[in-house]
Amino acid sequence: MEVLRLLVLPALCAAYGTARAPSGRHASRLAVDPAMAATTAFDLKAYMEEKRVYTEEALDASLRSTCSQTDLIVESMRYSLLAGGKRVRPMLCLAATEMLGGDISVATPTAVSLEMIHTMSLIHDDLPAMDNDDFRRGKPTNHVLYGDDVAILAGDAMLSTAFEYVAANTKGVAAERVVQVLRMLGESVGPMGLAGGQVMDLKCEGQPDVGIDTLQWIHTYKTAALLKAAVCCGAALAGASDEDLARCETYANKIGLAFQVADDILDVTASTEELGKTAGKDLDADKTTYPKLLGLDRSREVARELVDEAKAALEPYGERAAPLLGLADYIISRSN
Amino acid sequence: MEVLRLLVLPALCAAYGTARAPSGRHASRLAVDPAMAATTAFDLKAYMEEKRVYTEEALDASLRSTCSQTDLIVESMRYSLLAGGKRVRPMLCLAATEMLGGDISVATPTAVSLEMIHTMSLIHDDLPAMDNDDFRRGKPTNHVLYGDDVAILAGDAMLSTAFEYVAANTKGVAAERVVQVLRMLGESVGPMGLAGGQVMDLKCEGQPDVGIDTLQWIHTYKTAALLKAAVCCGAALAGASDEDLARCETYANKIGLAFQVADDILDVTASTEELGKTAGKDLDADKTTYPKLLGLDRSREVARELVDEAKAALEPYGERAAPLLGLADYIISRSN
Repeated sequence: MEVLRLLVLPALCAAYGTARAPSGRHASRLAVDPAMAATTAFDLKAYMEEKRVYTEEALDASLRSTCSQTDLIVESMRYSLLAGGKRVRPMLCLAATEMLGGDISVATPTAVSLEMIHTMSLIHDDLPAMDNDDFRRGKPTNHVLYGDDVAILAGDAMLSTAFEYVAANTKGVAAERVVQVLRMLGESVGPMGLAGGQVMDLKCEGQPDVGIDTLQWIHTYKTAALLKAAVCCGAALAGASDEDLARCETYANKIGLAFQVADDILDVTASTEELGKTAGKDLDADKTTYPKLLGLDRSREVARELVDEAKAALEPYGERAAPLLGLADYIISRSN
Repeated sequence: MEVLRLLVLPALCAAYGTARAPSGRHASRLAVDPAMAATTAFDLKAYMEEKRVYTEEALDASLRSTCSQTDLIVESMRYSLLAGGKRVRPMLCLAATEMLGGDISVATPTAVSLEMIHTMSLIHDDLPAMDNDDFRRGKPTNHVLYGDDVAILAGDAMLSTAFEYVAANTKGVAAERVVQVLRMLGESVGPMGLAGGQVMDLKCEGQPDVGIDTLQWIHTYKTAALLKAAVCCGAALAGASDEDLARCETYANKIGLAFQVADDILDVTASTEELGKTAGKDLDADKTTYPKLLGLDRSREVARELVDEAKAALEPYGERAAPLLGLADYIISRSN
């Protein structure tokens, strides 16, 4: 089980046991900062657990062998897709849909697709030709079980299935919106997405002169791009305006950077056991990180500032934004 | 330059210098088989050259570095995308659009996308963890120049950009059609597409009991699936009915299998120099091939029969099908 170490005290968490944002408006009167108030009055832990279970079911239903010839590739894909994880991207997508008053069933195929894309990036990142990781979340990585060749192909199949899945299963929304979602999903993986961020990251490894701007560029594309797709696709499927999308983008970019700063901090402070993957890898690889450039204390401050800015971007949505505000806090408070 | 060895004598080829199918109907009176007549009366060489040049321009325009940070990944993607090749998939797509009376500008982003998907599969297939090929079309493969890690990521970025490109650039057609195209493209790469076919192919390597059914399954998904997507997407963008799509699917499946039979034959009969890649690899890898199962002569017959069946499926389109009929012949007559 994941340990939630919320910065915001979950004193009032028991008050809301459902996935719905509180419908009353009085909660915001309890605190000075309305955004923080919405967070404290909202049971994030219950929300996350409900959405995690919902997502696991949707993921489990998404991939099935359709003939005996596809058994091996589908088994390999399912192994990694269903290997646990926080399911942050599907949650962000579903929460954004709800924030704009949409029904999550419309966004469910996209939520599944986001996790497929994320899983593809993990399978390929773990390969010997990349990070060469034998374990992830305490389990053998895909290529350890299925071989490098099958792992590469399972990743490719997962990525293409992500697009097919959205195109085939998104119902109850105009086709123009589906095209918009597929465009945003595609962008989030390409040169201005996670693959582009990864290549820049590789290029900078061992380079002594990597500054904060380059580090921020890398993290914006390596990490924030897919989170941005998650939030913006969820919003788009609920009929987001350009203004809504701009706010969602600001929120996602900020939490994406905060996520990476937190990850850099964890790499220094957490043990391998806590992380479920090899700790201290960034130091070994001679990588530039936020703690290296700014120190641990200032890095923690930066993460906090980014989360505050992310939350401020969603102020217009009041209590409907509660899940996204809570998830922003969660991102810098997680232990793994 | 590619050498065209057409089985059909190009005696009448000079008659048509444009990419348009002949508009008169009298050509079909010249021969017993109307499908063959349409082929002989059509200048395939000129058609292919025109469409190749058109496709090269579209491919060149498709990928550009948008900031200095993306230089390396975009350079790596462009290197493989623009490394020549027959551009068969874009041609099939554009020809199918024209066959149904559509304008090729509507199908151009999809034609580009098909070549991106094909290129991704080549980059990943050539990796040391897969076929370990250092050369393709006489040039160093992507990973030889950019490293395995960048090659994996360039492939991933290419695959996602393929979907983004169609979603962002397809104009003049209903969004429902774009969604349909994106669905077909996604399917062509997944477990029931080229990745699934590849995994099954790997699984069968060195197995003594691979029969013709399994071999046909492998080739249907490893090769025919993307050709099917090419023809069916092109047709869909011109407003194809379900009946049109079924005919296009039959055509594509047949030429896909014929393509692979021809490839197996070439692997036995052609030299490394002619192929531009290492010859005899199938024998080295102890792979089941059509010549091994059926002998060379019967394999040639099978290829011919498949092409005839493919052409028969398009009979209802008369002379509008001329480019696709010509391409079907070309597929089993190519020297590389």
